[in-house]
Amino acid sequence: MIGYGFMGKAHSNAFLCANKFFELPVRFNRKVICGRTEETVRAMKEKWEWEEYATDWKQVVQRTDIDIVDVATPNDTHVPIVIAAAEQGKHILCEKPLGMNVSECREAVNAVNKAGVLHMIWHNYRKSPSLTLAKQLIDEERLGEIYHVRAEFLQGWLTDPEYPLAWRLRKEKSGSGTHGDICVHIIDAARYLVGEIREVVGMLETFIKERPLPEDPKHKGTVTVDDMSAFLCRFENGAAGVFEATRFATGRKARNRIEVNGSRGSLVWNTENLNELLFFSKDDPGHIQGFRRIPVTEREHPYMKGYWPPGHAIGYEHTFINELVDFAEAYSSDKMPTPNLEDGLRNQMVLEAVLESAAKGTWIKIG
Amino acid sequence: MIGYGFMGKAHSNAFLCANKFFELPVRFNRKVICGRTEETVRAMKEKWEWEEYATDWKQVVQRTDIDIVDVATPNDTHVPIVIAAAEQGKHILCEKPLGMNVSECREAVNAVNKAGVLHMIWHNYRKSPSLTLAKQLIDEERLGEIYHVRAEFLQGWLTDPEYPLAWRLRKEKSGSGTHGDICVHIIDAARYLVGEIREVVGMLETFIKERPLPEDPKHKGTVTVDDMSAFLCRFENGAAGVFEATRFATGRKARNRIEVNGSRGSLVWNTENLNELLFFSKDDPGHIQGFRRIPVTEREHPYMKGYWPPGHAIGYEHTFINELVDFAEAYSSDKMPTPNLEDGLRNQMVLEAVLESAAKGTWIKIG
Amino acid sequence: MIGYGFMGKAHSNAFLCANKFFELPVRFNRKVICGRTEETVRAMKEKWEWEEYATDWKQVVQRTDIDIVDVATPNDTHVPIVIAAAEQGKHILCEKPLGMNVSECREAVNAVNKAGVLHMIWHNYRKSPSLTLAKQLIDEERLGEIYHVRAEFLQGWLTDPEYPLAWRLRKEKSGSGTHGDICVHIIDAARYLVGEIREVVGMLETFIKERPLPEDPKHKGTVTVDDMSAFLCRFENGAAGVFEATRFATGRKARNRIEVNGSRGSLVWNTENLNELLFFSKDDPGHIQGFRRIPVTEREHPYMKGYWPPGHAIGYEHTFINELVDFAEAYSSDKMPTPNLEDGLRNQMVLEAVLESAAKGTWIKIG
Amino acid sequence: MIGYGFMGKAHSNAFLCANKFFELPVRFNRKVICGRTEETVRAMKEKWEWEEYATDWKQVVQRTDIDIVDVATPNDTHVPIVIAAAEQGKHILCEKPLGMNVSECREAVNAVNKAGVLHMIWHNYRKSPSLTLAKQLIDEERLGEIYHVRAEFLQGWLTDPEYPLAWRLRKEKSGSGTHGDICVHIIDAARYLVGEIREVVGMLETFIKERPLPEDPKHKGTVTVDDMSAFLCRFENGAAGVFEATRFATGRKARNRIEVNGSRGSLVWNTENLNELLFFSKDDPGHIQGFRRIPVTEREHPYMKGYWPPGHAIGYEHTFINELVDFAEAYSSDKMPTPNLEDGLRNQMVLEAVLESAAKGTWIKIG
Repeated sequence: MIGYGFMGKAHSNAFLCANKFFELPVRFNRKVICGRTEETVRAMKEKWEWEEYATDWKQVVQRTDIDIVDVATPNDTHVPIVIAAAEQGKHILCEKPLGMNVSECREAVNAVNKAGVLHMIWHNYRKSPSLTLAKQLIDEERLGEIYHVRAEFLQGWLTDPEYPLAWRLRKEKSGSGTHGDICVHIIDAARYLVGEIREVVGMLETFIKERPLPEDPKHKGTVTVDDMSAFLCRFENGAAGVFEATRFATGRKARNRIEVNGSRGSLVWNTENLNELLFFSKDDPGHIQGFRRIPVTEREHPYMKGYWPPGHAIGYEHTFINELVDFAEAYSSDKMPTPNLEDGLRNQMVLEAVLESAAKGTWIKIG
Repeated sequence: MIGYGFMGKAHSNAFLCANKFFELPVRFNRKVICGRTEETVRAMKEKWEWEEYATDWKQVVQRTDIDIVDVATPNDTHVPIVIAAAEQGKHILCEKPLGMNVSECREAVNAVNKAGVLHMIWHNYRKSPSLTLAKQLIDEERLGEIYHVRAEFLQGWLTDPEYPLAWRLRKEKSGSGTHGDICVHIIDAARYLVGEIREVVGMLETFIKERPLPEDPKHKGTVTVDDMSAFLCRFENGAAGVFEATRFATGRKARNRIEVNGSRGSLVWNTENLNELLFFSKDDPGHIQGFRRIPVTEREHPYMKGYWPPGHAIGYEHTFINELVDFAEAYSSDKMPTPNLEDGLRNQMVLEAVLESAAKGTWIKIG
Repeated sequence: MIGYGFMGKAHSNAFLCANKFFELPVRFNRKVICGRTEETVRAMKEKWEWEEYATDWKQVVQRTDIDIVDVATPNDTHVPIVIAAAEQGKHILCEKPLGMNVSECREAVNAVNKAGVLHMIWHNYRKSPSLTLAKQLIDEERLGEIYHVRAEFLQGWLTDPEYPLAWRLRKEKSGSGTHGDICVHIIDAARYLVGEIREVVGMLETFIKERPLPEDPKHKGTVTVDDMSAFLCRFENGAAGVFEATRFATGRKARNRIEVNGSRGSLVWNTENLNELLFFSKDDPGHIQGFRRIPVTEREHPYMKGYWPPGHAIGYEHTFINELVDFAEAYSSDKMPTPNLEDGLRNQMVLEAVLESAAKGTWIKIG
Repeated sequence: MIGYGFMGKAHSNAFLCANKFFELPVRFNRKVICGRTEETVRAMKEKWEWEEYATDWKQVVQRTDIDIVDVATPNDTHVPIVIAAAEQGKHILCEKPLGMNVSECREAVNAVNKAGVLHMIWHNYRKSPSLTLAKQLIDEERLGEIYHVRAEFLQGWLTDPEYPLAWRLRKEKSGSGTHGDICVHIIDAARYLVGEIREVVGMLETFIKERPLPEDPKHKGTVTVDDMSAFLCRFENGAAGVFEATRFATGRKARNRIEVNGSRGSLVWNTENLNELLFFSKDDPGHIQGFRRIPVTEREHPYMKGYWPPGHAIGYEHTFINELVDFAEAYSSDKMPTPNLEDGLRNQMVLEAVLESAAKGTWIKIG
């Protein structure tokens, strides 16, 4: 594994626990964790029980005792590492976003295709049992023809004007603001449930345009990324979409919510209640129709057999474990897991179309 | 109508509106409103468009141009008026509680039975579309065998120790505290849905034992009624019940809630969401089981055809209109409406059994 | 009052009840109800206790014993009646929408301004105690600077392809589909809370393009109005808005919801819980911050003193009573009530800007 | 660690993860896992990365390279192991229930007191951040004087009459039914928040009295434990309590809920929303009072600094990790952790008083 930040921790936990909660066809060895700063990576190695640590990813990807490379580094290094690892025939796990822009993402996809390796992108929310159940209900045709998708990812931590101009708020370092960081999650969830997006019209906004410099708090610098983004869209299948992401929704910690309405039913998924799914069915008798609040904590629900007895909640980190479970099963049967780098590319295409639309003030077709 | 307090207003509104929202087989004339204080009753007559007012109920019940007498006076006068009206052959509508104790209630029941008149008690919550729907689901056998009833009526307005020793807190005037005032509502709802109660064990508590005298706030007098009551019970059909009522649940305005669990399903009714009913069915496929939140605002729901288009909420006062609608239909077909004075008597029997249990510290059988 | 449909019933009830629940400086006489079909208007007059009925509105607006004309007719007749009544010096109450398009609305506004009469438009949701409380919290500066408005009005009754091509689905009769019928409600609520909208970009969609003709169900005709509309916008004060209205959200009966996020707090109003308001405040200590669910049923809340004791819900129809209460107070002090025909005009300007944006595929500035 | 069932897994995970999520003053070594069946315990040792396994707990508790013994065996063996380990000077962690009855629990408490070792009982729900926050709010005097506790633990998995007569339903093996298994959780939570219980009156019920024998499904045997229990009580501080636990609440998976009402505020904790706490404060201005839904996922909340960024949910298993974190801190400062075996004893005293009350039909004083 390359990287040791927040995602390094989430991935380490997944590698640690996947074989404990689940009977898998493969056993993950936590061979080597790699990061630039020796002191930090050594501490991480100790804490999360990796066998070794390293500081040069270029050497790591060439090791012959490694099958899988997991990329959890800062965004601007994803694609170079992916390409180098693919060239060495390693299977790839990569944090989102795949790359900084569409053309970079395309290079990565070409590289893994050429190398013929398996690849997966960590859009972990897909692997929450509740969102997987949502997909299952759609596949069971319980929603019928899809008319509407409305999705929002609302956070509120950035409204303080004294919050400094951190790297996340500088385009050259982060690539993007709210749009690339969290709007991508609801784009991915919508594509997972409903399919590809045909065209978009969008807006971005930076509410607080200057912030104190971290290195010199008496002076301010210009915020170069968006605080919020929103867009309307049409899906390939004719559904209409409304999307919004923001860091300025005071009171919302991480409201990642998607609602889908179809001709036969509707569903609502929301990370504020990660162990639940709301589902409405027109197949019910008229006088008892209503949105069911399904506790997705039972043995018949996706992934839940691995954890605790019925009725016991799991948390955020388990979505990473579940994604690794899926990878293990794909790996052992030599099938391509999902979501993979193709999804990373397609998500990026939607993000960029919204940016282009916001710049031009018109609708933009995708692909 | 005899009486002009809070309930006089609710009843007046029901008489005013029943024929407007519903096509009924009878038309209610608002003939005469009667109350002790001429100035007040005259104002009430003007405001609510009654034809006449009167100050002596004994004369009113003897009038030959009156078919129905509605009793909405203070609790200690219900039974005398009911008996006098019944003796004159009037049909009876009576506010709850029917009387101050079981023996008084029994006299009233005997009087109406002897007179052969129709009679109804204003347990209006039964007539909320959502609670009526709950009853309908039970009658449709969607709950199966009933195992559990848990009911609570929580208010929080009495926790201030400076709240004066008003008439509601003096036993000689009110007859009872929380127990007779609001616990009776959940007893009635439970009997409506599940049937009769066989035995009880209960407790009452007065948390603030002395309060300022209204007439002399520097001095305190003793509170002679309960602030809360609670009891456990067994129903005739074997179900187990847990009941609680209080005026000391800070933050609760009027949480009148009942949950029923059966072998095939469960339901939850709650006045905090008066236009909704929660319903769980084991008949659903396992992976989509969950409590449905049914918006009881559609044309297929009880009483709702009379009001507004689908999706529009009604309020507290409409439960009185609905009860009058039922009375009109019973009247025109000469059938006994429900709930009626028998229910008033049976509710009182449960209340008194709890009082007796609290005094003796043991289980008490009913009837 | 001119008109006797769904809104005729809602307005009749308001005229009937306003003086009963509230002590008002004026007393509304239900003088004359007017409609084209004699039989229907006579029945309505009887049922709702109007003094007279009439069939020619042109005569009615000229009567000297009438002060106020309430217009509740089909949409295409609002403006002619408003202008004629204003010319007679009558004060005006008018159902929404004010007119079929901006230029017609402007004529109506000019007419009432010229006549110097009072005028009000029935955007009744503004008068729900919970939405009025929302406005009060903003006026108390509890939200700080406003960043976000997200609003949706979701219905689901139109997904059946066998639902006929009723007048509502024909542009020549209804003027508009979902957009003018229900999207206008969330536009009005947003303008009420946050102020004017500067520019919009939007879309409309007709999911089911042909429907059975009512007069000949074997043949189909073309649906000429929208099934859904959505738009993004910027407000004059810099806030970003996301709006959506639809009749294709299966399971949603009337989810009319608006969320506002500011620098100090946030609020959520939703007709699905009409007696509640959600409110989040950053002024609370950090460890107890959370959205409060305020039961807007207490004496300190707008309009609630007129109704029932604390904790008792009111319903949809009371918003009309409340609006009439406001009119009575404005009337008696000769002040202009709100919302009034200026609001009708401004709402129409937003609606039309969205239509123009959808046609051109670009952002449109308003005004 | 002795034991390898459901709780063995939960404890193993806690030992594995505590030092990873938290910087602790001690490091837990997963020395040896012990169980009767060699094959099972060896597999468990492999899977959860214990250093050794063993099959004889009597040898294990005598090892000098072990400081802490964790007891997660079947209920009837807790006390013998606790006593043996205490005699060897080991610190004790013990699953609930401590023992089969009060006198057995007392022996265990005497043994640890005599040995002077640290001891803790796994009432893990106390360590959910939301319940810990509830305790903190009470300690901050935000609730004022406590009037009410109402608690329920509702499950619904046992309503099927074909469910076999498993060991949990045989008193000789399980010691108790719903009462000892889950009612004890709400007793412990109530004692944690409000203090000791003075007297109780209760009931138990077995709804399905015979079930198929697992070893011979054509024949039925008698269920010898309760399906539900409920009791009323008075606390030492004067509060009134209502408790209910059942396995017959169809639709409820694990609704472990406690509500506390005080003179200044109220709170509601519920495992169905484990990452939330509801809190009502009378200190708020009147017009904005309401139950706050506090997302207990922020850095200022108990234990949450150890996990993920703000807004990310944790699950059931983390309550065990948190309890171990508290033990580590108590251990390093040589203080007694809570809850400990004294709590196990006191919980058992309440359980037995309810049993005695149910048998005698009267109130029973505790202690």
